Amino acid sequence: MNRASLYEQIKKKGSCLCVGLDTDLQKIPKHLLSASDPVFEFNKQIIDATHHYCVAYKPNIAFYEALGPRGWESLQKTLEYIPKDIFTIADAKRGDIGNTSALYARAFFEQMNFDSITVAPYMGEDSVKPFLMKDKWVILLAHTSNSGSIDFQTLEVNSSGKKLYEEVISRSQQWATPDQLMYVVGATRSDQIANIRALAPEHFFLVPGIGAQGGDLALVMKHGMNKQCVLLINSSRAIIYASADKDFGKRAGEEAMKVQLEMAKFL
Amino acid sequence: MNRASLYEQIKKKGSCLCVGLDTDLQKIPKHLLSASDPVFEFNKQIIDATHHYCVAYKPNIAFYEALGPRGWESLQKTLEYIPKDIFTIADAKRGDIGNTSALYARAFFEQMNFDSITVAPYMGEDSVKPFLMKDKWVILLAHTSNSGSIDFQTLEVNSSGKKLYEEVISRSQQWATPDQLMYVVGATRSDQIANIRALAPEHFFLVPGIGAQGGDLALVMKHGMNKQCVLLINSSRAIIYASADKDFGKRAGEEAMKVQLEMAKFL
Repeated sequence: MNRASLYEQIKKKGSCLCVGLDTDLQKIPKHLLSASDPVFEFNKQIIDATHHYCVAYKPNIAFYEALGPRGWESLQKTLEYIPKDIFTIADAKRGDIGNTSALYARAFFEQMNFDSITVAPYMGEDSVKPFLMKDKWVILLAHTSNSGSIDFQTLEVNSSGKKLYEEVISRSQQWATPDQLMYVVGATRSDQIANIRALAPEHFFLVPGIGAQGGDLALVMKHGMNKQCVLLINSSRAIIYASADKDFGKRAGEEAMKVQLEMAKFL
Repeated sequence: MNRASLYEQIKKKGSCLCVGLDTDLQKIPKHLLSASDPVFEFNKQIIDATHHYCVAYKPNIAFYEALGPRGWESLQKTLEYIPKDIFTIADAKRGDIGNTSALYARAFFEQMNFDSITVAPYMGEDSVKPFLMKDKWVILLAHTSNSGSIDFQTLEVNSSGKKLYEEVISRSQQWATPDQLMYVVGATRSDQIANIRALAPEHFFLVPGIGAQGGDLALVMKHGMNKQCVLLINSSRAIIYASADKDFGKRAGEEAMKVQLEMAKFL
């Protein structure tokens, strides 16, 4: 999906919500476990209930990989079920030497038909470039939202006053245009988002680590937007596990709508 | 597999060779393509021919992932076929927030029974710790052998005179003992290996980027060993694709033996 189509969706739906499909057999409602493919059955009902309120779905690949070959089948079926006008993100955090990254690109962009993949920057340019294809996106880890993000990402590099994640953002802009490259920018410290926006004025940010809390969301929207809304804001557990009962789809839809209505105030 | 058993193998075989199973349908001998599982058939014959000369096998996960669910089945069968006294490495370069890394650990250490997994350090401590389990190993990317390794890994951090990969090595030693943690150290500049050995005197290094060239190998052995041989030196293409004909197994065995004989001079 290209930038124009993605932005069109955001305007049309008044939403920049991404729903994270972190589907865990230990957390989905018990009555689904007797289905032939419980993971797909759960995802299908979540997608049915939420697709009017979101512009992207982000399966977290680890949850599928942990189930072995049948997990990959559930993932493939889920991807095919997602409406074609919705952006899809393989949250895989891959990245390897060139010929190996090319194979990961084949796995996620050809074997499956994802629009984008999250990529780790540690191995540098040749580990990222094989993912750059027409109408496909690299979503590069910049500043993540976990506690370990302070171990290396915030170290100052080359006495420049710049932190490692800022160097990742500066340098990677030489590798791809804002039509092919997004950044993962954690929402746990939303004041930082304004600084990162200044470094990458045009790029989409994928923002994880936000729940359905209006407060945080408003700060991220305020500091992360440029004149357009070049944000995809992810919520996973707060939406998909809003209920552990038979009404889980309905409840997920309600939670997604709440977030969408909050977003619409800014759009 | 624990450290004692791994080191025992190295002494017994006079080898620290790791054979990389980068099995590519476009490169394996054509006559195998009619087999029901060509990838497994190729790996089986490579393992039959090389297992006397190596102490580890390293499937590069991208090659299997690119084939979809049947690739994971080939990988599982390959892993079960590897003799139990040989160390196994999932070259997966995973790493994500804690609960997600825990699922990758489940995929590679429980769903499959690998001894170790390569992990990218960018997301810090909580992305690495879930992989630390009894008799399982994290092989953390430190200084890789690809051209992009100079983009971020060699930046100086916090005006300390230390490069990022050196900081990765120092800091990660607080997370795990040398019985659980190895480092990926590229062989393209073998003079650096001596410096890295000084930073991590006890840890095993997984050294990629070496062919069957005696020269490079000798330098890596000389600079990388401590009083024991705490090295696993990988060769992939030079061994597994030594021939594209029906004699590919025999030729792979000969190439592996050549490397082993060179290694034995140091052991």
